[in-house]
Amino acid sequence: MRFLRINAERLQNNIRELASFGLNEATYGLDRTTFTPAELAARQWLKGKLLDLQLTVRVDEAANIWATRRGFGDADASGALDATENSYASGISATSGDSAGSSGSRAARSSLPVIAFGSHIDTVPNGGKYDGALGVLLALEVMTVLEESKISTRHPLELVSFSAEEPNPFGLSTFGSRAVSGKLSRSDLTGVRNDQGELLTEALLLAGGDPVHFEQCRRDPEELAAFLEVHIEQGKRLLDRDIPVGIVTAITGIYREEVTVTGEANHAGTTLMADRKDALMGASEMMLAFEAVCRNHPANEAVGTIGRIRNEPNAANIIPEKVIFHLEARGETVQQIQEMIGTWGKQARDIAGSRGLGLERRLLLDQAPQPMNDLIMDVCAVEAEALEYPVLRLGSMAGHDATHMASLTRAGMLFVPSLGGKSHCPEEESRIEDIEKAGNVLLQSILALDGQLSR
Amino acid sequence: MRFLRINAERLQNNIRELASFGLNEATYGLDRTTFTPAELAARQWLKGKLLDLQLTVRVDEAANIWATRRGFGDADASGALDATENSYASGISATSGDSAGSSGSRAARSSLPVIAFGSHIDTVPNGGKYDGALGVLLALEVMTVLEESKISTRHPLELVSFSAEEPNPFGLSTFGSRAVSGKLSRSDLTGVRNDQGELLTEALLLAGGDPVHFEQCRRDPEELAAFLEVHIEQGKRLLDRDIPVGIVTAITGIYREEVTVTGEANHAGTTLMADRKDALMGASEMMLAFEAVCRNHPANEAVGTIGRIRNEPNAANIIPEKVIFHLEARGETVQQIQEMIGTWGKQARDIAGSRGLGLERRLLLDQAPQPMNDLIMDVCAVEAEALEYPVLRLGSMAGHDATHMASLTRAGMLFVPSLGGKSHCPEEESRIEDIEKAGNVLLQSILALDGQLSR
Repeated sequence: MRFLRINAERLQNNIRELASFGLNEATYGLDRTTFTPAELAARQWLKGKLLDLQLTVRVDEAANIWATRRGFGDADASGALDATENSYASGISATSGDSAGSSGSRAARSSLPVIAFGSHIDTVPNGGKYDGALGVLLALEVMTVLEESKISTRHPLELVSFSAEEPNPFGLSTFGSRAVSGKLSRSDLTGVRNDQGELLTEALLLAGGDPVHFEQCRRDPEELAAFLEVHIEQGKRLLDRDIPVGIVTAITGIYREEVTVTGEANHAGTTLMADRKDALMGASEMMLAFEAVCRNHPANEAVGTIGRIRNEPNAANIIPEKVIFHLEARGETVQQIQEMIGTWGKQARDIAGSRGLGLERRLLLDQAPQPMNDLIMDVCAVEAEALEYPVLRLGSMAGHDATHMASLTRAGMLFVPSLGGKSHCPEEESRIEDIEKAGNVLLQSILALDGQLSR
Repeated sequence: MRFLRINAERLQNNIRELASFGLNEATYGLDRTTFTPAELAARQWLKGKLLDLQLTVRVDEAANIWATRRGFGDADASGALDATENSYASGISATSGDSAGSSGSRAARSSLPVIAFGSHIDTVPNGGKYDGALGVLLALEVMTVLEESKISTRHPLELVSFSAEEPNPFGLSTFGSRAVSGKLSRSDLTGVRNDQGELLTEALLLAGGDPVHFEQCRRDPEELAAFLEVHIEQGKRLLDRDIPVGIVTAITGIYREEVTVTGEANHAGTTLMADRKDALMGASEMMLAFEAVCRNHPANEAVGTIGRIRNEPNAANIIPEKVIFHLEARGETVQQIQEMIGTWGKQARDIAGSRGLGLERRLLLDQAPQPMNDLIMDVCAVEAEALEYPVLRLGSMAGHDATHMASLTRAGMLFVPSLGGKSHCPEEESRIEDIEKAGNVLLQSILALDGQLSR
C-alpha cells in the first residue's frame, strides 16, 4: 500500500468549501466560534461528507462528531488478512451503528481497538481556515482514499471532530477532548453562560450533545489503540528551516488565570492624581510586569500573553473601578510555568499594595506539558523517510486535543508549516504541497500502525 | 425678600423621587444615561412637576427642557416695581407659550432678558443621584418658593434641564448646552450612533427634540441676562475646609482624544516573545506614561485619565491586534493641557516606534478653560455673607453646561460639598444641610441679580 497517496485537489476543494462557513466578508477571516450558527452549519456539512463515505456517524454527548470505518478484527481470529471489507460488513455493522450505546459497546466487539485521528472545526473570532479544520479534512481525505481503494484495516478507524477546541465565549477550551478523556463532568457545565447569557447546556443540546448524560461520552482506554492529529504549526520553525513535516515531541503546558484588579470609580476631573485608585493603571503595570517576566525567562518557549481584558465602567470621564484580564503562561516544563507565574504573582501583589488596589486571582486552566508517544513518533519518522520527506521533531507551543487524548491512548501529532508563522488571524495560510506531504505521512502512518500494533 | 428660604424637606423628597428613575438594584447606583428609557421617564417626571407650577414648559430642538416664569418687565417702563405677577400675565403669556417660534420671539417681548438656571438630569453608567440632578431640583425648588410666595421678578426666569451633559454612548457630552450656544450643528448629528447602532437623530426625536430644525434651539445672547448652575463639587476641597458653599471662579479645560494602537494578531503560544507586536502591551506602556506625565506636572489641578478602552479581538489565546482608548487631560489653563499632551505625545510615538506598533490619534474635544462672570461671583458672595454662610472661591475641575452658557451670557456656578469627594459612582452623596445653603444662596442671588441687572 506504499503507492497510496491523498488527493490534493479534492482536499483543496474541501478546504475551500468548509471555509465558506463563518466567512467574515470584511476581513476574510472566519468567525466560526463553537456552537454559533456558522459552526453548526459546518458540522452539518462535515456529517454529510462522512455519510457520503458510508461511514457510521455518531455525535456523542459532548457533541463530538465520530465517524467509524469498520476493521476486520484481529488477523489471527479471522484468519483473513487479505479479506475485503465487505466480507466483514454484516458481522460488525450492528455494533458500529449503535449510536446510543454505552461507551463499552461502541467498538469493543471488534477484537482490536480503534485507531482514531482528527482535530476540530471551530475557530477563534476572525481566525483562519487551517487551524483545526486541516486535521479534520485530512482525516476525511484518509477515509476517502481508503474507501476509494477498498483498503481494509485490522483496527477500526475513527475520524473525530472535537467540539470547542478553541477558547470560546463559554470559557471552556479543548472541551470535547477533555470530556472524552474524563476531565470534564456534568457539573462543570452547570450554569455556564456566554456573554449573551446563553447557557452552555442549551448550546450543547442544539449541537446534538446531551448535558444530562454527559459523562457517557468518555472513552475507555481499552477501546483505543492510538490517536493522531495533523495541525498547522502556527509558528515559524518549520518554515525557517524549509522542512515540510513536523513530528511533535510534546505539547506545551498551558496555565490560565483570571485576574481582577479593583480600584475606586471617581470623577476624572475632580480627583487629584494623588487621590486616585485607578484599576486600569494598576492593571497596566501588572500586564507590563508579566511581559517583562516572560521576556526575561531564559527558555525561548516560555511565553505569556494577556489577550482578554474588560474595564468597568469604561466611560471616558470616570476613573476605572475594575479591570478583569485573562493571563496565560506556556512552557515546555511545569517548572518554566511555575517560575513565570511565581515571579509575576509577587510583583502583582506589590503593585496592588502600592496603589491601594484589590487583587483577586482565579485559576482557569493548569494543563501540564504532555509528551507524545515514542512509537507513534518513530512510525511517522519512518514513513516520512520512505516518502523522502525531510522532517523536524519539535515541541508544540499551542495546546491541542492530542494533549487530552494522550491520557487515554498512544497519541501523536504532525505539523504543517505555517506561512509567516501566522495563525488565529485571516492571514493564516499553509502551502498545499506541504499539506499534501503531511497527509501522506498520516495515511501511511495509520496503515503502518494498523499493521504493527498488536492491540 | 431676605426672609425667603427654600424648603429642604420638599427638596429631599424630590431628590428621592427623581433617584427612582434608573435605579440599579444591584449597586444602588443610577443608570440614567441620556435618551435611555429611564432618562426619558425622568424627563416626564420633571415636566409634570414644572407644569404643576403653572410654568410654561417647552422642549427645544436639542430636547432641552425649559420652563419659563414670566417677569413683569423693566421697572422704568412699567412703573410697577411692586406689581404682582398676575398684572402682567395676559400681555406675556402668548410669547412664553410660543414653543415653536424662532429664538428671537421667545422672551424678547418682555423688555428684560431672561435669568436662567438649571443643570442636567442624565447620569453616567452606575452614577449617583446628585450630579446634575441637584442643580435641576434646586432650580425647581426656587421656582416653587417664588410661586408659593407670589414673588414677582422683573426679569423672566427660566429653569433649564440640559440634554446629555455626561459623556454618553453617542460620544457627545454637554450636548444640550453646546447646541444652545451654537457649538453644535445639524451636521454634527448626522450618522452618529451608539454601540447598539441606534441613531442619535432618532433618539433625539424620541426625547422630543428635532434634528431637522436643530439649530433653532440656539439662544440669542440678547435674550439672556445671566445663567446660574448649582452642582456638587465632586472633589474634596470644600469638605476638607468644612465650607458649605463654593463659588466657582473658572471651569477646567477638557481635552480628549481617541488613541488607536495597532499591532499584529497572532497565536499566544507559538509566537515567541521577541516576535510579538502586542497592541495591548504597547497601549499599557503608553497609558502608564500618561499617568506619569500627569503625576509629574507641577499644577495640582492638571489631571489626566484613561477611562475607556477596547481590545481586539479580545480572546485569551490571541495576541491583541488593536487597542483603542480615550485619553483625557484637564487643566486650569490651556498651557497646562498643552504641556501634558505635548510631552505624552512624544513618548507615545517613541513607544509605538520601539515596539513596531501603529499609532493613530484623533481629537474628540478641546475645550478651553472658562472663567465665570465676576459680577455673579460677587453677588453670590454678598448673598452668602448675608446668610452667614462661609464660602470658598475655587475652580471647577469638572466640565459643566455653564462652560457653554458663559459664551452666551454672564454665567456663574455654586458648588455643594461632596462627601469623600466621590462622584460618578453610587456612593456620591451631599449633606442636605449643605444643599439647603447652596439653594438659599441661589434663590437670593437670583433675586439680587433681578434687582441689580439693568438688562
